[in-house]
Amino acid sequence: MTSAVKPGRIPAAPSTASLLSPEAVAALRDAIGADHVCTGPEDLDRYSRCTIPWERRCGAVVFPGSAEDVSAVLKAANRHRLKVWPFSGGRNWGYGTTLSTEDGAVVMVLHRMNRVLEVNEELAYAVIEPGVTYGQLNAHLKQHGYKLWVDCIDGTSQGSVIGNALDRGVGETPYGDHFGNLCGIEVVLPDGSIVPIGGDDHGPKTWHLHKWGVGPYLEGMFTQSNFGVVTRAGLWLMPEPEAYNSWVFEVKDASHLPAVIDTFRQLALQGILTTKLHMINDMVSLTVVAQRIEQHRTGGGYLSPDEVEALRRQYGIAAMTCAGGIYGTQAQVRLQRRILKRALGRHGRLLFISDRMLAVLERVISTAWKYPAVKAVVERVGGASLQVLDSSPHVHRILQGIPTDYFVKHAYYRSRRRLKTDQAISPALDGCGVIWFAPILPFTSADMLPFMDRARRRFEEANLDFWVAVLVMNPRSVTCLMNILYDKDDVDEVRHAEELYATLVSDMRAAGYQQYRAGLLAWSSLHDGAEPVRKLNGTIKKALDPAGILAPGRYGID
Amino acid sequence: MTSAVKPGRIPAAPSTASLLSPEAVAALRDAIGADHVCTGPEDLDRYSRCTIPWERRCGAVVFPGSAEDVSAVLKAANRHRLKVWPFSGGRNWGYGTTLSTEDGAVVMVLHRMNRVLEVNEELAYAVIEPGVTYGQLNAHLKQHGYKLWVDCIDGTSQGSVIGNALDRGVGETPYGDHFGNLCGIEVVLPDGSIVPIGGDDHGPKTWHLHKWGVGPYLEGMFTQSNFGVVTRAGLWLMPEPEAYNSWVFEVKDASHLPAVIDTFRQLALQGILTTKLHMINDMVSLTVVAQRIEQHRTGGGYLSPDEVEALRRQYGIAAMTCAGGIYGTQAQVRLQRRILKRALGRHGRLLFISDRMLAVLERVISTAWKYPAVKAVVERVGGASLQVLDSSPHVHRILQGIPTDYFVKHAYYRSRRRLKTDQAISPALDGCGVIWFAPILPFTSADMLPFMDRARRRFEEANLDFWVAVLVMNPRSVTCLMNILYDKDDVDEVRHAEELYATLVSDMRAAGYQQYRAGLLAWSSLHDGAEPVRKLNGTIKKALDPAGILAPGRYGID
Repeated sequence: MTSAVKPGRIPAAPSTASLLSPEAVAALRDAIGADHVCTGPEDLDRYSRCTIPWERRCGAVVFPGSAEDVSAVLKAANRHRLKVWPFSGGRNWGYGTTLSTEDGAVVMVLHRMNRVLEVNEELAYAVIEPGVTYGQLNAHLKQHGYKLWVDCIDGTSQGSVIGNALDRGVGETPYGDHFGNLCGIEVVLPDGSIVPIGGDDHGPKTWHLHKWGVGPYLEGMFTQSNFGVVTRAGLWLMPEPEAYNSWVFEVKDASHLPAVIDTFRQLALQGILTTKLHMINDMVSLTVVAQRIEQHRTGGGYLSPDEVEALRRQYGIAAMTCAGGIYGTQAQVRLQRRILKRALGRHGRLLFISDRMLAVLERVISTAWKYPAVKAVVERVGGASLQVLDSSPHVHRILQGIPTDYFVKHAYYRSRRRLKTDQAISPALDGCGVIWFAPILPFTSADMLPFMDRARRRFEEANLDFWVAVLVMNPRSVTCLMNILYDKDDVDEVRHAEELYATLVSDMRAAGYQQYRAGLLAWSSLHDGAEPVRKLNGTIKKALDPAGILAPGRYGID
Repeated sequence: MTSAVKPGRIPAAPSTASLLSPEAVAALRDAIGADHVCTGPEDLDRYSRCTIPWERRCGAVVFPGSAEDVSAVLKAANRHRLKVWPFSGGRNWGYGTTLSTEDGAVVMVLHRMNRVLEVNEELAYAVIEPGVTYGQLNAHLKQHGYKLWVDCIDGTSQGSVIGNALDRGVGETPYGDHFGNLCGIEVVLPDGSIVPIGGDDHGPKTWHLHKWGVGPYLEGMFTQSNFGVVTRAGLWLMPEPEAYNSWVFEVKDASHLPAVIDTFRQLALQGILTTKLHMINDMVSLTVVAQRIEQHRTGGGYLSPDEVEALRRQYGIAAMTCAGGIYGTQAQVRLQRRILKRALGRHGRLLFISDRMLAVLERVISTAWKYPAVKAVVERVGGASLQVLDSSPHVHRILQGIPTDYFVKHAYYRSRRRLKTDQAISPALDGCGVIWFAPILPFTSADMLPFMDRARRRFEEANLDFWVAVLVMNPRSVTCLMNILYDKDDVDEVRHAEELYATLVSDMRAAGYQQYRAGLLAWSSLHDGAEPVRKLNGTIKKALDPAGILAPGRYGID
């Protein structure tokens, strides 16, 4: 297994030998077969890369093919006191990819376990293994003609459906709470025992239908933790609605933001907005449509307000753009359009896109790319550059569960290498600098706006561009997801990025907020000030994993 | 504290002395004050009663007033090896009330902890203590003018909001998944430590806004278990909608049931039906409007189909009646009415009730009770007896979160004592015989109808009336909630009821289903055939409660 791309910054640790003893390597090979245990330097390099400023070198990479294989690896780890770090797909860019807290870990990647075990159209669910990606599951549903949609992320189509749900990631549609829509899981505990959580040996017929089971509800224990390895899960799918529209809303100017935010909350509380609505600032759009090296800026530093303004005009980008979907019968969708228009109309420009409109739009865009005259007309009528208009089909499709790598282009914003059109997206291997910071806030303008204002100042102090996407988690809370995009080849900028992250965490804590999801950079201090929680986590960890072999330190649990 | 009602069957154990040592009683008194520790025979009697055939006598009853009190009781229990059984309100009739698995337990009732700590209208949640009842919280919201509804059960208004949620009970409205709408809890662990699950010492500002917190999601562990005592919780409330209709649907006859059930599933999956829709059979209605002793039947045995048919005609009751609510803007409610009419029209009679109609209906009913001539007209026009019409305002109110004891009257169906109109409802103290059996099934007619048919035969074999209410748990699963109503003064009938329960559990298991919620009668065999789950529960229990002081055996965990 070799990396096809030019490496970015390579970890400093020795790259020629495994950090594991020959006995340990032999035990892993015995457990799952020599073909599925890699210790060669190129493999170790590949799985020791990340987009965050973190350097750890793994000792081996193993690829189990079944829950029994996972069990065998964990048993070998207990005997040889190895640290095993499981990853469903290993695409968790910006949080940690496949890195661990210490050198010499056994990275366990589950991508061989990629079977779709069951799809039930009548009851709208699937049962899958952790290696199944958004792209694969969506293709599977389409190929077999199931009238079901799988909610996806706006990150990569290569992402693991189960992996994202276990990190409690969020998507787009009314099924966008990925953990909330997981139902019935099989877990391998650190001692190697295989437990169908919430079910008996073969699982009752409601194992994937009723989320809480009977007796204590334990599935949540296995998210954002290191208590076990999930080897299969039921996932609720969204029945294809009779009608669907995506919508895009461009906020007029900053003075309308308080009203827009509070209106969105009210619409969500009333059950009118049911999607994981996204609100993105101008930098988010800019980083998707262009790389910094194209922007005639050679030096470092963040773009000044004037420069951003000029680029916004150049590309036709609003200061704040929102997007969501509405679903239902034809009449319900019509009614929701009316309600949204009435609520938002005075605050900006609202555009609805139906499947039929999309087909027309795509033909127009494709023609416009070929003929400059058409391009000029389309851009004037559309009120945006062709680059921006080009993104609307992707938005429309993502909101019906069709994933794309289109939006991950933002990861390359600060890269010194030009991203080619046909290039496979792989920010970790390509040496991109990306750190996600994901604080969760009450869904009120009074909480969100001052917090984002201060964060913007922090970004500017660090000489980095302020990038924020607000994701509605539920009608009561939002994640103000910030992306620290930095040049990994610039030592100073790496340091600034690291310091900025620490400052943002500290500001967040002082303001009384917490993260909804956290990466390697945050774990050691995650439970500072929450001693009773840390102790409870530790008590459970000790009971389930007395030797501490499974991802010690993950989410601050050891 | 004395029981005002004539006792039913009194437990056989000695009633004149506490089963605890004087040292243990002294330790409990030291912990929370002598006033809050009861060991008198009348108190022990009162808290040793239940509606199920189960006889255990408690050794003391304690009433802590705070989390610190709960902690002090648990610490004393660890020192003196006492078994402590916590109950929020102690109204869990039909499952276990305040009984435990063995004699001599310390019953800990939390009803003194009944503060509403916070109500936030903007973000639609409350923070409450476990002693807060549905009646109290609803009154609190109304008194302070909050435009928020608390979902309630159709059981008693005296029920604990937190207690029901921790047993994962369900209500009526779109907020009917009570545990699903709990967010941010404080727990006292068996060692006495107080842990704000998902929060730091003071709780981040999103503690009651974002359900999953950061790190492992542990709240579910403390439901249907014995891992800790929940001493406060956040609860999401439903914003008062612009418009609301309740609806009642009477299914034409049994031949329409498959289509009705599958239509309801489709409506739920499409997000059109959002309530915990109830479907009740004729016996449910009969047991609410009348007691058996009024029905000119003196002997035992179940009512024959002919007798049921005659009673249905007498009272104007359908074989199967469904009820739910629709909520939204005026236009949304109108649209939902149209969708329901189109989907259900051909299968039976569908009636919508608005707040305005309700006011008229109530005036008409109250007049009709006074004047026989009016009564006759109202009954003919309404197509039902005045007794049945009388229930519709209760249905309408429950679906907007206003609780009532009206429907609990069914518990008295087999009682030999006439229930008086002004009598406080208290089935356990009144010696009523009630056992709930709550299997959960896939939401398909193919699963539900054969299962209910067999259950009906089992009830008849046991010489008992078949009582079933289908509760929609989510768009994919339903609980076929059955009520074994029996005469607690008839030794044979008690035995039949007990045997029927065991048979139903065994049939359920053979068919591949499980309970959604289980009482004392079910716990010892709850995890039969699910050894890995039982072992995992046991490992966690041992880590958190090494001395086994907290409710050992609850939900099969010890």
